[in-house]
Amino acid sequence: MNVTTKVTLLSVLLFWSCVVECNNPHPLDPLTPSELKLIRTIVQKSYPISKTTFNYVGLDEPNKSQILSWISSNPKIKSSSPPPRRAFVVVRFQKHSHQITVDLSTRSIVSKNVYEGNGYPMLTFGEQTVASRLPFSYEPFKESLRNRGLNASQVLCASFSIGWFGEAKTKRNVKVKCYYTNGTANFYARPLEGVAAVVDLDDMKIVGYDDRYVIPVPKAEGTEYRASKLKPPSGPKLKGIAVTQHTGPGFTIEGHSVRGFISELFVSYQDPTEEWYYTTYFDCGEYGFGQSMSSLQPFTDCPPNAAFIDAYYAASDGSPVKITNAFCIFEKYAGDIMWRHTEIAIPNELITEVRSDVSLVVRIVSTVGNYDYVIDWEFKQSGSIKIGAGTYTHTDEIKEDIYGTLLADNSIGIYHDHFFTYYLDLDIDGEVNSFVKSKLETVKVKDENIARKSRWTVVSETAKTETDARINLGLKASELLVVNSNKRTKQGNRIGYRLLPGPVAHPLLLQDDYPQIRGAFTNYDVWVTPYNKSEKWAAGSYVDRSRGDDTIHVWSSRDREIEKKDIVLWYVMGFHHVPSQEDFPVMPTLSGGFELRPTNFFESNPVLKTRSPKPLQWPNCTSQ
Amino acid sequence: MNVTTKVTLLSVLLFWSCVVECNNPHPLDPLTPSELKLIRTIVQKSYPISKTTFNYVGLDEPNKSQILSWISSNPKIKSSSPPPRRAFVVVRFQKHSHQITVDLSTRSIVSKNVYEGNGYPMLTFGEQTVASRLPFSYEPFKESLRNRGLNASQVLCASFSIGWFGEAKTKRNVKVKCYYTNGTANFYARPLEGVAAVVDLDDMKIVGYDDRYVIPVPKAEGTEYRASKLKPPSGPKLKGIAVTQHTGPGFTIEGHSVRGFISELFVSYQDPTEEWYYTTYFDCGEYGFGQSMSSLQPFTDCPPNAAFIDAYYAASDGSPVKITNAFCIFEKYAGDIMWRHTEIAIPNELITEVRSDVSLVVRIVSTVGNYDYVIDWEFKQSGSIKIGAGTYTHTDEIKEDIYGTLLADNSIGIYHDHFFTYYLDLDIDGEVNSFVKSKLETVKVKDENIARKSRWTVVSETAKTETDARINLGLKASELLVVNSNKRTKQGNRIGYRLLPGPVAHPLLLQDDYPQIRGAFTNYDVWVTPYNKSEKWAAGSYVDRSRGDDTIHVWSSRDREIEKKDIVLWYVMGFHHVPSQEDFPVMPTLSGGFELRPTNFFESNPVLKTRSPKPLQWPNCTSQ
Repeated sequence: MNVTTKVTLLSVLLFWSCVVECNNPHPLDPLTPSELKLIRTIVQKSYPISKTTFNYVGLDEPNKSQILSWISSNPKIKSSSPPPRRAFVVVRFQKHSHQITVDLSTRSIVSKNVYEGNGYPMLTFGEQTVASRLPFSYEPFKESLRNRGLNASQVLCASFSIGWFGEAKTKRNVKVKCYYTNGTANFYARPLEGVAAVVDLDDMKIVGYDDRYVIPVPKAEGTEYRASKLKPPSGPKLKGIAVTQHTGPGFTIEGHSVRGFISELFVSYQDPTEEWYYTTYFDCGEYGFGQSMSSLQPFTDCPPNAAFIDAYYAASDGSPVKITNAFCIFEKYAGDIMWRHTEIAIPNELITEVRSDVSLVVRIVSTVGNYDYVIDWEFKQSGSIKIGAGTYTHTDEIKEDIYGTLLADNSIGIYHDHFFTYYLDLDIDGEVNSFVKSKLETVKVKDENIARKSRWTVVSETAKTETDARINLGLKASELLVVNSNKRTKQGNRIGYRLLPGPVAHPLLLQDDYPQIRGAFTNYDVWVTPYNKSEKWAAGSYVDRSRGDDTIHVWSSRDREIEKKDIVLWYVMGFHHVPSQEDFPVMPTLSGGFELRPTNFFESNPVLKTRSPKPLQWPNCTSQ
Repeated sequence: MNVTTKVTLLSVLLFWSCVVECNNPHPLDPLTPSELKLIRTIVQKSYPISKTTFNYVGLDEPNKSQILSWISSNPKIKSSSPPPRRAFVVVRFQKHSHQITVDLSTRSIVSKNVYEGNGYPMLTFGEQTVASRLPFSYEPFKESLRNRGLNASQVLCASFSIGWFGEAKTKRNVKVKCYYTNGTANFYARPLEGVAAVVDLDDMKIVGYDDRYVIPVPKAEGTEYRASKLKPPSGPKLKGIAVTQHTGPGFTIEGHSVRGFISELFVSYQDPTEEWYYTTYFDCGEYGFGQSMSSLQPFTDCPPNAAFIDAYYAASDGSPVKITNAFCIFEKYAGDIMWRHTEIAIPNELITEVRSDVSLVVRIVSTVGNYDYVIDWEFKQSGSIKIGAGTYTHTDEIKEDIYGTLLADNSIGIYHDHFFTYYLDLDIDGEVNSFVKSKLETVKVKDENIARKSRWTVVSETAKTETDARINLGLKASELLVVNSNKRTKQGNRIGYRLLPGPVAHPLLLQDDYPQIRGAFTNYDVWVTPYNKSEKWAAGSYVDRSRGDDTIHVWSSRDREIEKKDIVLWYVMGFHHVPSQEDFPVMPTLSGGFELRPTNFFESNPVLKTRSPKPLQWPNCTSQ
């Protein structure tokens, strides 16, 4: 295997932080807590802190060429001349979104301008918290509670983005809806239907209020999920089981040599009534998938042999916030087989060769509202990368209607979608790549001496421009590859990686419906664009109340050349969810995944010589 | 949860044997070694053993009603009045297939007749071994070896089915092709191209021979896969990793309470030349997927906490043959999450609940020629059943041509397909079930006060007859369920199980091509038929040289009623394989799976109250 052959997945997990002593700094390291503090200090010289919200603080990546050049330089140059550390910041100030680039070495703002386009930046947790408290000092809301005989101390509210539905002008508003918390942690199952406040986040005041109808709050019974609160009988007892690596893990973490990125996650509900029609969320652009990472629990979220890494993000006021154990990394051994063969045909010899499959997994969980998303990046020894997403949710709604499944008394699970899009900047042994569609086509057998009538063959087509590479899966048999057209194996095959897709779901909204315009990245399952540093967020950079004018659908309509270029592969994985009673009060995993698989990347099987791990024997052990 | 609610998967793994002391006999237990010997004794009273081949010996299942009645009777009746044990046997005698039903309690043949239809039964290992040796005493073959300077002691031959390509009459012939074994165990990579014998299995003699061209045998270098023979550098060293259950497994095996079945596996190659056009194998009907099970290796094929079960099948002469460790059963813990939620919205309280996922896996490996198939049945605590199939292969062929990928010097990996079909006799809380297609359809929003234009909803359609239930996946968004229309949850939903499909591949041969006629089960991804004891083998009962007149496509064209009936779900999972260099000399896993998921089967999440297994601590342990 050619050791210089490599695949580089250049991307950044915005909130992955280098621990304080960073021995191997990398230009793509996320901002450290110290750097976040420094950025805050620099920005507040120009923006009064009390009137400014930090809606986005992330690394301003060096240009790709700078990074690649640094990667290939010697260690002395690496430490003496790293690319400059810069941050890109979006603040809300005086009702405008200000885009600021901060240079951390010169400790100064090197550029700033006001964003004039449509849409607003991510909602911060601080803003959501303050907005969600406003109803409690608002007289009409207090009246609503009294009318329902409810105690304010057992009600909480949460903020929700409201999208865009053709309005000529918008304000930076959210809807605030409330829930009853008495008797269960699962408040999402007990909404105060019919009650909603509209809050202007810039003025931070209630600008609209509705109390349209009174219906009973669903009972708490059956909604609880906390083990400490559940009544017997408990579930089946599991015998202890653990994955152990008594001589320690087989990997070391050096800075951030493992990374990846979900560009957008579109979740739309299928209830057209007044209270629900606008619920078409963008969990990355509106809520911040990274800042929404939850702390992972050892032993349950991740197996016993996992290592954990913290993450940091900037709060509303720009100060760093730590997410403990945001990532876990572990060697996965599920008892699966990497490859095997039994040979019985050789006389007097029975040959059996089996190799166990052990892979490296990097995991996060992002919790947005009532959903927990488990995102796994699995790196296999064969060179395959398997990416998985699992969803878990609570139930949502009351009332009898036809937009969902009746899950429990007064609880409907509304039909909804989840569409994930992954940004995959594959560089197959270099940046100059192409995208190939290998179509599998039926061919008639022409030889009249042969009784067989047909076969299939592969017809390869290289995509020249962006429209060639917009693909809806499932219609025709084909394989999709990113290749390096200039590099061939010894046998003459182009080196590449193939996409093995996961579950496919296509949009079912009308093309000109507002959520579909905003979520136009879902119009195709696969896109390919030429690498462009500003094109990272498939639904745009300012997604809240966006109008769909900065999505991948718009960019790629420019039909740019993508043959023998530095290209980016975008893959959309979708799920239509028709809830069932098993989803109440919390649902078991629904997951899907896809794979990037080496295809003529190696001269032969790269794991032919891998040995299975030694079996461990434990004669003298007792568990605690 | 209603304890009488159950799903019964009634089927039989033909070669799963009850261990000698069978404490909990079940009517569907496979035939024991003693029973196999008894059958042989009974049959040979009517058929002289030296002239008779036992091509099929399997349980003749009692009628389903008898089984169900037995299942629900009390233990005393269960042991005193089990349904009768019978066997169905197909022997070849005097060039005919004789179908014999043997009653083991009366020790007699209760029925026999000669099969008059097309096609022949499974090839036995004995027949294949004898046929494969014939060339070595055949002068033209010895000449062929001399012409190539080859030593007969380093050549082996194997037998291959030849299908049917429109011949009006057929003989029970196979092709015998040979390989050079010197220097590597991977003889499939070193065929003697251009050389083939045709053997009539009934006469057991060579009836045709070809030596069409001489080309160099590919070198052995690079083809070896045995660890003991591979030269350094070896692959990466893995740290020891093990799954341990120090207090033992969480399951007990009582007879055969876990079972399932692959009905057919169609593997067709896409090379239309004389030597290859007929290679369109049916790994169940021609070769016997069950008798082809390989012994599983502890620690590598299955994790350390696995239990193993042996299997038995009848050899060519009817005597029992043991497959040691044919099955393994283990609790799988891959570090995955069953369900979780983090709640941050409740003031002053951070709630995190996580449950680890542990499931029960039953695994076999069936090795047919150069392919190893790993078949997993995974039973999840949530009630889901996940079924997986993984393939591994060697490379196949020499010559430069365009029917495959050049994988190594003189080695082409021919394009080919694998189509698995699963027989799934689901009885959702009883046998009277229906098949429902829940279509997801776009609906325009009619309310002019609502700015949203569209949503999607579910339109359910119950299949009335078989043609309603022939489904090609991927074209429209829909969910497919088997339900019990007569039983509803408290909330009024029909109880059921949903099919979540795996990788979809559709046939690319012409509909009227002979292999496609024989493999017509691949014409649809999903079929539903009314339960019929004789309809088990999707390509027919006599698949070798069959003509496609007894396939599921033929049965279901009768368009029988399937609403509120005892129905069987058939699911076809296909893979088109375009080989790549990573597949040489053996390929890493390519796998796919599908899921049967409870959908309104339970009143609520059945694993809400499950506790994660206790974490195991190992302070005083050292590995050996």
